[in-house]
Amino acid sequence: MTFEIPGPIDPPARLLMGPGPISAYPSVLEAMSAPLVGQYDPFMTNTMAETQALYRGVWATDNDATLLIDGTSRAGIEAVMVSLIRPGDRVLVPVFGRFGHLLAEIAERAMAEVHTIETEWGQVFAPSVIEEAIVRVRPTLLALVQGDTSTTMNQPLDEIGAICAKHGVLFSTDATASLGGNAFESDAWGLDAATAGLQKCLGGPSGSSPITLSDRAVEVVTSRKRVEAGIREPGDPSSPDFVRSNYFDLGMILDYWGPRRLNHHTEATSMLYAARECARVLLLEGREAVIERHRVAGAAMLAGVQALGLGVFGDLGHKMHNVVAVEIPDGVPGDAARAALLEDFGIEIGTSFGPLHGRVWRIGTMGFNAREDAVLTTLDALEQVLRRFGAAVPTVAGVEAAEDVYRRAA
Amino acid sequence: MTFEIPGPIDPPARLLMGPGPISAYPSVLEAMSAPLVGQYDPFMTNTMAETQALYRGVWATDNDATLLIDGTSRAGIEAVMVSLIRPGDRVLVPVFGRFGHLLAEIAERAMAEVHTIETEWGQVFAPSVIEEAIVRVRPTLLALVQGDTSTTMNQPLDEIGAICAKHGVLFSTDATASLGGNAFESDAWGLDAATAGLQKCLGGPSGSSPITLSDRAVEVVTSRKRVEAGIREPGDPSSPDFVRSNYFDLGMILDYWGPRRLNHHTEATSMLYAARECARVLLLEGREAVIERHRVAGAAMLAGVQALGLGVFGDLGHKMHNVVAVEIPDGVPGDAARAALLEDFGIEIGTSFGPLHGRVWRIGTMGFNAREDAVLTTLDALEQVLRRFGAAVPTVAGVEAAEDVYRRAA
Repeated sequence: MTFEIPGPIDPPARLLMGPGPISAYPSVLEAMSAPLVGQYDPFMTNTMAETQALYRGVWATDNDATLLIDGTSRAGIEAVMVSLIRPGDRVLVPVFGRFGHLLAEIAERAMAEVHTIETEWGQVFAPSVIEEAIVRVRPTLLALVQGDTSTTMNQPLDEIGAICAKHGVLFSTDATASLGGNAFESDAWGLDAATAGLQKCLGGPSGSSPITLSDRAVEVVTSRKRVEAGIREPGDPSSPDFVRSNYFDLGMILDYWGPRRLNHHTEATSMLYAARECARVLLLEGREAVIERHRVAGAAMLAGVQALGLGVFGDLGHKMHNVVAVEIPDGVPGDAARAALLEDFGIEIGTSFGPLHGRVWRIGTMGFNAREDAVLTTLDALEQVLRRFGAAVPTVAGVEAAEDVYRRAA
Repeated sequence: MTFEIPGPIDPPARLLMGPGPISAYPSVLEAMSAPLVGQYDPFMTNTMAETQALYRGVWATDNDATLLIDGTSRAGIEAVMVSLIRPGDRVLVPVFGRFGHLLAEIAERAMAEVHTIETEWGQVFAPSVIEEAIVRVRPTLLALVQGDTSTTMNQPLDEIGAICAKHGVLFSTDATASLGGNAFESDAWGLDAATAGLQKCLGGPSGSSPITLSDRAVEVVTSRKRVEAGIREPGDPSSPDFVRSNYFDLGMILDYWGPRRLNHHTEATSMLYAARECARVLLLEGREAVIERHRVAGAAMLAGVQALGLGVFGDLGHKMHNVVAVEIPDGVPGDAARAALLEDFGIEIGTSFGPLHGRVWRIGTMGFNAREDAVLTTLDALEQVLRRFGAAVPTVAGVEAAEDVYRRAA
């Protein structure tokens, strides 16, 4: 060995107030240190079933096909894309930030014929604009981000499902950044597929992607099913139209989570425990109560930064509850100020992508950290740091404005 | 809600003596409950770099491109396959068990022209047989499992790298079942790509896949690089020959783990902590010492089941140290006996696949459980259960034979 073996993992104390990942709920961290059990232990299969039931609650769905993909958020997106899209299918992606581009990218790699429409960063799409594009493109699938952290916008989805149904289009959304902190109604909004991650408002670590599929989506998946060589038995389906990924083949993954318990991957047990606990925490507090907690924390953070005299990016009528893009004041070095917050106060806020890079910080209030003390501590430290870098900021105005929001919400 | 929200996760005590997953090292479970940090926190990027260095030690390689794929073992396999194989490339897969079929399956889904050769279950390939097939098929890539848990066989790899180099073939192996418990020399054996998982001899949970790539493999990956839309900057590569997966595009993943820290996925922090601890535990004990511990535990288990009068499947000269396929005695109901071991003794042993299904149990001695007390406890319980189901087994002979192996190894 040419290097010294490091000691046990010992992370510094951090209050994660960026656009995600964020500090996990303590009980989620604790759940991950629970002992492992075997893949087909009755306790394991029961835990998988419990987790599915819990996520039906989180997604507000009756979909039987509600499960976890073993990977980060984009693993869930890719599983949906490669399983629902046949090579050459037309896919429509309305893009209002970085993650719209990601959906288009994943669809293109899945060999779709991808069509995009774009709106200015900081805005969302009117349903009529999406419908016009559907009529023009006639896609098989509409893939639409709900909350795009790159712009903080929350695309209204409630009218889109009916439009998709009317035109015979599958409707898929990625709610990684928004689920748990903002309204989401999988069945009521007519979603055929929805994907998320744990590392935002669900308050867990990255590495597991909850997804849900409508019966219509399951039909597409099932029609393409091919059980892999090595465990395929006589009579097992082997569609020539098989999915061009083994890992993300939802046909086999559904059979792994379903009564057949087909041996596909070995479920990531500790991440399953974490995902289960994220959903459990959310449902124990109550889905509406958690969204309200995020609404208040977001409103307090917004009022706070505005009271500090900072500008805010984007259409505030469509901002996600859980993240705000704060304009970096003239003369303040954005990265140095962020580093000072991290190094001196142990608080992380986020940088930004693309057209906003260097222009805004992104401050999150998510999951465990959608709390009054986290909001006030962050605003207090931000005030100190801004002053240190020469910005003229009113004393305690940020904290007071945030406290005021909490008082009114109480 | 139509169901009661379950309590915190509370798994039953289990001694996992199957073919994997197995009981994790206690310090690995503990590492996963460490607090999260941000994606670009200096502590996080340093932890990623430490983990890479640790796995260079585990793989016995100087490969810079040594990292984790966020997913289970087959995520690592698929990342290597889709990134190294261009559609239409010829891939040769020698199959000696279920997981050879899996490699072929993944390659086929990656649109390779797949050629297989097969040998009888319970046997391995002579290097000359593989070379003959290479000469005949002229593949771009040879994909070969090292240890196939379905048969317990350990395919010798030490002569294969030179054969591949001579014929200009990339050499890839999956060492999920074998790494840590059996000799593995990535550089000395001329591997271009190797993949694994944590849930076998590395003693962690499933959900992170360590991989390593030679410079030659990195060249292939880099030649196909395309930075995804949404974060692509002027001058960034955008090869028309891009990888047909975003999640598994090693070009971007290398840039995420490398100095550029390209924003691809959000690293699964808790699984990173687990993977780091698995490698740390292994290197602290010493790579050779851990292999020797697995050798002795495997020899003790083998001697024990043989002393109980049970037959053992396969060529014992090429058995992996860490798993044995034990023939189910006539008249003993295999599944009921396994269930009794699990329910009454809290010990899990494994069933089997394909031609061995119903004929053998697979008993593992891996990672944390490659221990004398785990071996003896399992043999003792197995004796009780066999007797309960009417098998004539000699009293304490299994335990004594295993103890004898430990005495001689001491």
